[in-house]
Amino acid sequence: MPVTDAHSDEPARLANTIETVFAGQSKDYPERLLSNGSRAVLAEGADAQDDCAVFSFSGEQELVVGSDYVRGPKFRLYERGLLTEYDLGYYLVAANVSDVAAMGARPIGVLTVVRYPLDMTDAVFEQVMLGIRDACADHGAPNVGGDIGGAERLILSATAMGVCPPGRSVLRRGARPGDLVCLTAPTGIAGAATEYFRAGRVSEEIEARYRGSLLASWARPRARTAEGMALGKSGVVTSCQDTSDGLKATLEGIAVASGTGITVFEQELQVPAEVTAVCEFVGKSVLPVVMGDSVDFELVFTMAPERQDAVRAEFDSAGLGFHAIGVVTKEPGVLLEHLSGQRSPLPGKAWRHAPEQAQR
Amino acid sequence: MPVTDAHSDEPARLANTIETVFAGQSKDYPERLLSNGSRAVLAEGADAQDDCAVFSFSGEQELVVGSDYVRGPKFRLYERGLLTEYDLGYYLVAANVSDVAAMGARPIGVLTVVRYPLDMTDAVFEQVMLGIRDACADHGAPNVGGDIGGAERLILSATAMGVCPPGRSVLRRGARPGDLVCLTAPTGIAGAATEYFRAGRVSEEIEARYRGSLLASWARPRARTAEGMALGKSGVVTSCQDTSDGLKATLEGIAVASGTGITVFEQELQVPAEVTAVCEFVGKSVLPVVMGDSVDFELVFTMAPERQDAVRAEFDSAGLGFHAIGVVTKEPGVLLEHLSGQRSPLPGKAWRHAPEQAQR
Repeated sequence: MPVTDAHSDEPARLANTIETVFAGQSKDYPERLLSNGSRAVLAEGADAQDDCAVFSFSGEQELVVGSDYVRGPKFRLYERGLLTEYDLGYYLVAANVSDVAAMGARPIGVLTVVRYPLDMTDAVFEQVMLGIRDACADHGAPNVGGDIGGAERLILSATAMGVCPPGRSVLRRGARPGDLVCLTAPTGIAGAATEYFRAGRVSEEIEARYRGSLLASWARPRARTAEGMALGKSGVVTSCQDTSDGLKATLEGIAVASGTGITVFEQELQVPAEVTAVCEFVGKSVLPVVMGDSVDFELVFTMAPERQDAVRAEFDSAGLGFHAIGVVTKEPGVLLEHLSGQRSPLPGKAWRHAPEQAQR
Repeated sequence: MPVTDAHSDEPARLANTIETVFAGQSKDYPERLLSNGSRAVLAEGADAQDDCAVFSFSGEQELVVGSDYVRGPKFRLYERGLLTEYDLGYYLVAANVSDVAAMGARPIGVLTVVRYPLDMTDAVFEQVMLGIRDACADHGAPNVGGDIGGAERLILSATAMGVCPPGRSVLRRGARPGDLVCLTAPTGIAGAATEYFRAGRVSEEIEARYRGSLLASWARPRARTAEGMALGKSGVVTSCQDTSDGLKATLEGIAVASGTGITVFEQELQVPAEVTAVCEFVGKSVLPVVMGDSVDFELVFTMAPERQDAVRAEFDSAGLGFHAIGVVTKEPGVLLEHLSGQRSPLPGKAWRHAPEQAQR
């Protein structure tokens, strides 16, 4: 085991941390059998320490694969000491697996790039890798390899892979006018957490009732893997995207890709209690937090209303939930229909990945 | 087209640069047919701009997948103005595809993570993406997706994927005592380039004869994809690893993974003319540059001597070359047998990815 204040080089970290943390993963890998009998099995994982990981594929299937960098040590909550390196490792995996979930696929593995500064001790490095390992276990997708080594600060990037039967990956561009627009769970908690912890003041009520869930939105995000697989399995979902850029950006993403518009009904928008409490405390409106750049990893998806029973059946049998928030329109534009019946552009600032937005 | 000094946000860069640079790639993707009739085809690429890329797989095959971060703007030659952002994009792809080549697999795609600083103009950003695109074209593996967005400096990471028939991925750990140790081409040019350009002095002879090839080792590295596929196809190669950590580190990697030793014969080591010229100019020994932390992306592989004809036939038919430099030994340890017959540890410092080694 590494000594707390040791600063081992890469070969020692491979031998002492990577080999220990990811031992035996190929041996223990469950066979990923798709509904059509196709298989995907890990043959060589991170413990093999080869140039690449190796999967054995058999039969007709689709591989979905995506990469995301996460700001990690640039997160406001990390800079304020509210997140640990373990949390950053955990977040890296959840953020990447979320992209696989949004395709309706079953995760099969994650590759992680962890570059660390000279002053990062073996113990802290191990915490990053343990966060990665545990998030992988929680999401059913082992860390099968990647890259470690030095950099001037902690840099985190990853790639997640998943499989589904042929033709079952769910793209963004298939939404059709008349489709219901649905959401796996209300959004805004991650954004509310940012608002609250940067306020510089403390609310006794929020501390007592919501501090845990606000922090968890950053420290233990969960990609909606079960929901994603249920969407794919239903075969009736016309589009899907995760809300990692915020709900507004997601709705705009689906609408633009599909060549449609979307109207969201204010009366259908559920507002988490944490968001209501924080917005009241900091003196902000609720809707811009719910719709804006809150990074919640929920899934937005669309389907014809007459086919919603197929999705409901899949979700019910897995103990999962979703709710409709709007409808796909022929006319372009993403609008909010207020309780009054009036329509206006969606409130909230969509996440733009611009360098000046350093809070994510 | 972007204006030279514009600084667009991510949606604009996606629309103006990514869509333009990677247009139509799924449509133009060749069917990757393996020798056993299995297929891998790109269904949704970077131009789809979805959560993930999608490949359609059919039949029995192995997927190999690996991720590498590259120091990019921290390269000594970039800091000295000898490499452009286009070159860094090119390098990112070559370094990642090299890991697929080292598995004996056929590259099918690359995911790239490009995070850029606030002051990077659209024109420079486009140069990075053009370097990525052109390297992908040169290596037969399109850029199928990834992540762009802000960071405090240019950060480059990627993932490369490849396929091969079942059981044909070439690992590091299969070398057996008595096997020949072979190399696709002499190493040391990238290391010599670093030595030369940091010397702070100019040699007329080197400028006239070798400046181009020295720079090309960093600006236009080529992963040995054809060689890797020939190794996999031969079916007789017992281990393979690329020399991206330097020849010494590669030999040690194979030896340790295989539970063997390796003896390299000095008389078999070919020294590129660039390396000889630079070492003479800067007053250094040749062998530490050839064996040390020169990042050349050659392949080291092993095979039983009696089976070398199978590899030679594959290489000859593809117009490729390799040469033997040593032999796998039962006794552990990686040694150099000098012309005198004496043996000593390999010279040169193996690349360690330690943060203080900033030249890569």
